[in-house]
Amino acid sequence: MAGSRYTYVKGFELPDPLLPSTFFVIRIDGKGFHGFSKAHNFDKPNDWNALTLMNEAAKRVVGGRELNGECVMAFGESDEYSFVFKRSCKLHGRRSSKLVTLVVSVFTAAYVALWPQYFPNSPLKLEELPVFDGRVVQYTNEAEVRDYLRWRQVDTHINNMYNTVFWALVLQGGRTPVEAEQELSGTISSQKQEILFSQFGINYNNLEPMYRKGSLVIWEEGPPTENAPASTDEPSCSPSTSPSPASAQSANSPSTNSTPAPVKMRQRKKPAKPKRRLVVVHEDLISDAWWESGRGKGVLEG
Amino acid sequence: MAGSRYTYVKGFELPDPLLPSTFFVIRIDGKGFHGFSKAHNFDKPNDWNALTLMNEAAKRVVGGRELNGECVMAFGESDEYSFVFKRSCKLHGRRSSKLVTLVVSVFTAAYVALWPQYFPNSPLKLEELPVFDGRVVQYTNEAEVRDYLRWRQVDTHINNMYNTVFWALVLQGGRTPVEAEQELSGTISSQKQEILFSQFGINYNNLEPMYRKGSLVIWEEGPPTENAPASTDEPSCSPSTSPSPASAQSANSPSTNSTPAPVKMRQRKKPAKPKRRLVVVHEDLISDAWWESGRGKGVLEG
Amino acid sequence: MAGSRYTYVKGFELPDPLLPSTFFVIRIDGKGFHGFSKAHNFDKPNDWNALTLMNEAAKRVVGGRELNGECVMAFGESDEYSFVFKRSCKLHGRRSSKLVTLVVSVFTAAYVALWPQYFPNSPLKLEELPVFDGRVVQYTNEAEVRDYLRWRQVDTHINNMYNTVFWALVLQGGRTPVEAEQELSGTISSQKQEILFSQFGINYNNLEPMYRKGSLVIWEEGPPTENAPASTDEPSCSPSTSPSPASAQSANSPSTNSTPAPVKMRQRKKPAKPKRRLVVVHEDLISDAWWESGRGKGVLEG
Amino acid sequence: MAGSRYTYVKGFELPDPLLPSTFFVIRIDGKGFHGFSKAHNFDKPNDWNALTLMNEAAKRVVGGRELNGECVMAFGESDEYSFVFKRSCKLHGRRSSKLVTLVVSVFTAAYVALWPQYFPNSPLKLEELPVFDGRVVQYTNEAEVRDYLRWRQVDTHINNMYNTVFWALVLQGGRTPVEAEQELSGTISSQKQEILFSQFGINYNNLEPMYRKGSLVIWEEGPPTENAPASTDEPSCSPSTSPSPASAQSANSPSTNSTPAPVKMRQRKKPAKPKRRLVVVHEDLISDAWWESGRGKGVLEG
Repeated sequence: MAGSRYTYVKGFELPDPLLPSTFFVIRIDGKGFHGFSKAHNFDKPNDWNALTLMNEAAKRVVGGRELNGECVMAFGESDEYSFVFKRSCKLHGRRSSKLVTLVVSVFTAAYVALWPQYFPNSPLKLEELPVFDGRVVQYTNEAEVRDYLRWRQVDTHINNMYNTVFWALVLQGGRTPVEAEQELSGTISSQKQEILFSQFGINYNNLEPMYRKGSLVIWEEGPPTENAPASTDEPSCSPSTSPSPASAQSANSPSTNSTPAPVKMRQRKKPAKPKRRLVVVHEDLISDAWWESGRGKGVLEG
Repeated sequence: MAGSRYTYVKGFELPDPLLPSTFFVIRIDGKGFHGFSKAHNFDKPNDWNALTLMNEAAKRVVGGRELNGECVMAFGESDEYSFVFKRSCKLHGRRSSKLVTLVVSVFTAAYVALWPQYFPNSPLKLEELPVFDGRVVQYTNEAEVRDYLRWRQVDTHINNMYNTVFWALVLQGGRTPVEAEQELSGTISSQKQEILFSQFGINYNNLEPMYRKGSLVIWEEGPPTENAPASTDEPSCSPSTSPSPASAQSANSPSTNSTPAPVKMRQRKKPAKPKRRLVVVHEDLISDAWWESGRGKGVLEG
Repeated sequence: MAGSRYTYVKGFELPDPLLPSTFFVIRIDGKGFHGFSKAHNFDKPNDWNALTLMNEAAKRVVGGRELNGECVMAFGESDEYSFVFKRSCKLHGRRSSKLVTLVVSVFTAAYVALWPQYFPNSPLKLEELPVFDGRVVQYTNEAEVRDYLRWRQVDTHINNMYNTVFWALVLQGGRTPVEAEQELSGTISSQKQEILFSQFGINYNNLEPMYRKGSLVIWEEGPPTENAPASTDEPSCSPSTSPSPASAQSANSPSTNSTPAPVKMRQRKKPAKPKRRLVVVHEDLISDAWWESGRGKGVLEG
Repeated sequence: MAGSRYTYVKGFELPDPLLPSTFFVIRIDGKGFHGFSKAHNFDKPNDWNALTLMNEAAKRVVGGRELNGECVMAFGESDEYSFVFKRSCKLHGRRSSKLVTLVVSVFTAAYVALWPQYFPNSPLKLEELPVFDGRVVQYTNEAEVRDYLRWRQVDTHINNMYNTVFWALVLQGGRTPVEAEQELSGTISSQKQEILFSQFGINYNNLEPMYRKGSLVIWEEGPPTENAPASTDEPSCSPSTSPSPASAQSANSPSTNSTPAPVKMRQRKKPAKPKRRLVVVHEDLISDAWWESGRGKGVLEG
């Protein structure tokens, strides 16, 4: 072939397989989301729609045909999401860069495609698109994977506690950001809760579970719920957001949003073989209880 | 800190730096674009809008602040794009997975965001989003990088020649796909050109350069063109497509497309320091001429 | 410093850590031992002294201060040896090339140093030294490590069975090598045993366990045996070989070899803290029995 | 095959190829040589025999059939040696661990085998064998490789200057080690030379080149010298040491040492195809002169 004199360059493509039989996590992170969230006026300390959009994009990743159902669960908080794969996953020969770029690309595509449903009045700008980077991390056993998820949930808790008090001090308490920062400096968790309660009448433990615990995308046995097409394993584009957390029954409730969706639904042709659907839940992953429960038990085995 | 007992899991994040001082190429590839292009009725053998959309997404990658101007050129054909980085690039500590995921994410985001401008009547479906995977390849010197680009351009040439004759036989010549395949089996380049010319009056060398040579995104010295904001180094969203190749003056000509753009332009605040802009050209990279020309000389040094 | 303008070259030394918490095996292999064993007239199909020398070199690796006692066991056959490390091993930051080169170097040094004791009449030649290469393989759990060792022992069995019959046919049966090869072609294990028994009166299962099962170097609780200094955790150079298998009581029996040893013994100064010593045994690793026995249980945890 | 149920464990052996077309250096380092050199009473600040033994072991590596002549040069100082391979080297598929372990093993074997010729009165002890670890470093062009070697030679210079003055102060000047260290603290090169000259009448620049510049093992065109068999490309074991530097004509001069050598010479059968031999020289690699000279020009191309 005419091109054969150049094909030697293909020899520079080195293999990068993961170790066989490790569990692996692909974690994606929003790049420059501080500025991005400002540009689109995300609510502080948490934006319900922004987080729900993250969850819907994650469901698209987990449930999409690209991953062949081999991602067993995903955990998200703020602008990051962790996708956990079972140890027997053989997708794409377990090539590291192939796997991590696929996850990042599907997530990004879904996030951008779903954006207008969640932020109909704040269109994306080409020069400031939502962008995510990713990495793969391998673990050798279930205990390590559980500790990984606990690590992320402890992070959720610490950040949310701080941000909740910080923004209460600023938005309701009239402090400047600098004053708020100084007031919180050196405080421990219980002191922050006390500030929230005594000064603003807020009981931290009554706040939205999604804010305090992050979001878990998991598979659930059983047929897709009648009125919740968004939770089937072939994701549709029916937005599962709601105008406000107050009116939201669940992250999976059908939307009443009438914004004209640029993303069109496609009718499902063939029924899924194993009946299962994706749900978003907000559970305590730090104690052992959930891991021993019906949903948590065996979840990492897929 | 409460979470410290779990932070050991962070130790499983292994370093993955590229070698210092290599040139490196990040190549992205459309995943399942055979089906995707069918679903959206891409023209055969080439779809002008689809290729222009690829080019615009690539410009967004090369010119975007995420890469800090360290990508010196990009080459695209069909549903793939190769981004070439100068050897002195120190972006993100040259961490492999960070770099490859960033490029894939920016490209995907731009592709999805720009889609409605190029395919206003064929909205994306959530279950079949355009998705790209990526890989990084390192080279030790300029000669190898040039040969890499030649390898891709030879591939462009071979594929386009085949596809052009194949689709002429099918669409204009009334063959079935199987008949066309058999007719082309074993033919060499000159025979394919002869079929094109004798049976369909098509001179292959007069076909669109973009189809025959692929597209090159490069930096050009000088101030951004007045009427071509899309070629500045801070990309805007003014679509540079045209309804048909016949009317297209250049891939950078301002669009007359009046589709309501979901992606909003942002006014540029601060002027770019070094005056340079991105252009899309279609050059012969296989002979040495372009590499010795004004544009090609030193291009890999950034 | 004067040299600082060149220190940038140090930046090309890339990290190569193993994953934390994997079990890992370092397997070394004799390079060109076919020729080497010929040059020194190794007995066929097995050379007692050559195998014992391998075992003694392996004991030096496992028991030496270089590995800090973190190698939990080793398995050898023919000219290869596998060293198994516990998952908690943190030696040298688990740097792959550091670990594999250390093991190879200690093994090679011990093999060469001990050589004159085992082959006093066949001195080494500089141009044909015994040389070993090595590799590191990581496993995620004990079941995989056990299967790794079973894989090597099945290999021992298959090779030894074949070689035993082959050399009986050649050395006692008067066949040429080609005839012997043809005679064995396509035979299964039971047929080979039958040939051995009917033609040569040899019961395969009565052959030396070291030949049939390979050698296992493991730690044993308790004080070093009085008359077996070679099995202490600080290896001495007292050769544990014997002139022939017939007279050998154990691979650890003190040598009666009076060859002037070029390697001098050093008196042990400080007593080992945890009383344990290295022993060489020949066990069936394929069934579960040994793994459940006193010696095998917990052996991989170190 | 009976063993097939275990062969899955082979899948855990991951590929580790070097990038094609890089130059690469394998550097080995003595492990714990501070203690080792004390145990064998190496002369301070430099031991002629110990360094010559390093050089001979390096020649065995470079000239041995294991590396197929693809190592183009080697540089040694103290207890370390760097082996430089040409970019076109395809040995063992450029597998990193294979290459680095081979070099370490050949070096170690040669060092131990040659030891009795250089230290006939100080036999090795099994529990304190000379051991080397190794690493591979890749470079993209000749300039970087030259700078690598300069980096090592600057290191040689700095260490030797310090050690020479330090040991003069201690051995001839009657200082304690602590006093000598304090006296040298903060001094620059010229001050150290001044101390040497004014207090001990030593002109630093007249000291042995091997001590000041390290040793370079390179190939030289032409037939092997009659009386210097050690410099042929098939290394023999004739020791090239000498009792003292004063009487040494060259590192390659035939030894007059009559110690019964445990390593036997083998007669060379077939003549080497390309006539070339290995020599040890002590050159200034920091300035450009040598690199532009007959020996240095093109040396890295092999």
